[in-house]
Amino acid sequence: MPPPPPDVTLIWGTHAVIEALGSRRRKLLRLSTTEAAAERVTVAAAERGVPLAIVPGDAIAARVPRDAVHQGLLLEARRLEPIALDDVPDAGIVLLLDQVTDPHNVGAILRTAAAFGVTALVMTDRHAPELSGTLAKAASGGLEHVPVALVVNLARTLEALGQRGFFRLGLDSAGETALDALDPPRPLALVLGAEGQGLRRLTRERCDAMARLDMPGPIKSLNVSNACAVALSMLRKRTEA
Amino acid sequence: MPPPPPDVTLIWGTHAVIEALGSRRRKLLRLSTTEAAAERVTVAAAERGVPLAIVPGDAIAARVPRDAVHQGLLLEARRLEPIALDDVPDAGIVLLLDQVTDPHNVGAILRTAAAFGVTALVMTDRHAPELSGTLAKAASGGLEHVPVALVVNLARTLEALGQRGFFRLGLDSAGETALDALDPPRPLALVLGAEGQGLRRLTRERCDAMARLDMPGPIKSLNVSNACAVALSMLRKRTEA
Repeated sequence: MPPPPPDVTLIWGTHAVIEALGSRRRKLLRLSTTEAAAERVTVAAAERGVPLAIVPGDAIAARVPRDAVHQGLLLEARRLEPIALDDVPDAGIVLLLDQVTDPHNVGAILRTAAAFGVTALVMTDRHAPELSGTLAKAASGGLEHVPVALVVNLARTLEALGQRGFFRLGLDSAGETALDALDPPRPLALVLGAEGQGLRRLTRERCDAMARLDMPGPIKSLNVSNACAVALSMLRKRTEA
Repeated sequence: MPPPPPDVTLIWGTHAVIEALGSRRRKLLRLSTTEAAAERVTVAAAERGVPLAIVPGDAIAARVPRDAVHQGLLLEARRLEPIALDDVPDAGIVLLLDQVTDPHNVGAILRTAAAFGVTALVMTDRHAPELSGTLAKAASGGLEHVPVALVVNLARTLEALGQRGFFRLGLDSAGETALDALDPPRPLALVLGAEGQGLRRLTRERCDAMARLDMPGPIKSLNVSNACAVALSMLRKRTEA
């Protein structure tokens, strides 16, 4: 499959495409759909004025990675521009990822972040996966709702957020407190690390507290997107109580 | 890559291999490791008496799917035998999957299930992914700790579990009660459906209650493994309180 031009991104799969069609942040270029999938998108495509082509499923399959579940829908759109760190709102929960690079994981985190109303996601630009394709599919529309900021240095970013009044909470299996026992204030910067390595030393040193998730079973660590979901679920209760 | 014989399964990746080396349920055949990865496994391999070969990374890469993160470790082992439904213990939480087929998702669910001490996972044999390879990698050892039962018919299985005293709780976006508001008894059968479709009608009809996860953000549904993690986290608090 020929790669799309650098400023064009491919989005496939029902949820990802429908959310992108509804996103005012996105400039849309062209939508390809199979006959079977067309009824899910024709109204939204017409409303947005995006050209629509009915094509065989094979034509879509040829443009996405092998084994990608495209569900008969492929949207070409402009990339979403990352936001600047200054534009991350001083409110609610902001997620920071320390070298989490797997696009399935980052995508699932974006989806979960959108479900929990997280205000922004911050990653380093050097180790971040592409904000498209596999990540967009896994995000299932989350990419349209959670703005992403790409920064050069995570430790310095945490310093800046601290000066802006964020409470900086790192999640790590070596954390001194169980997350359950914490009731952190808002705005909150929640920092998640790569599985295995956890948070880097400089990242940990810029946190106001380090928390762990205590697991009762024989396996002690969760997949990073599942850890994120459990943490956001715990933190949400605290706010609403 | 030539497929392994039908009764042999391939396990790759650090966590998955190390947990399998520690699992008495597994008959182990042969371990291939790169020189760099060897020190992580030589002691455990010797303890289990499993033959070990130091090989180039390319030799491992050639035997696993493209893009698989093998981390220099490939273990050949006998498949884990599924358990019979009668051998699912009448205690704690049992998970049932209704047509969840993506091996990444089922693997992540097994890992999370192991972390939360779930007693067994039940799937239909017709729509279940292979209990090896990609699933084993995503399960990160969870496959060694959570016994899996494969059944012909999920509705009949729920009937049988009901007769054994299980409270059967379905998770579905159309559930009448927020999971937060429920305090289900044990033993508990928690039923998760495929994303998009949710639970099938016959599955829902065999449940004692249907619960939903209420999400505050613009996206209302979670990836099924993240939904599982959030649900187990909520249900755990209730038990311990």
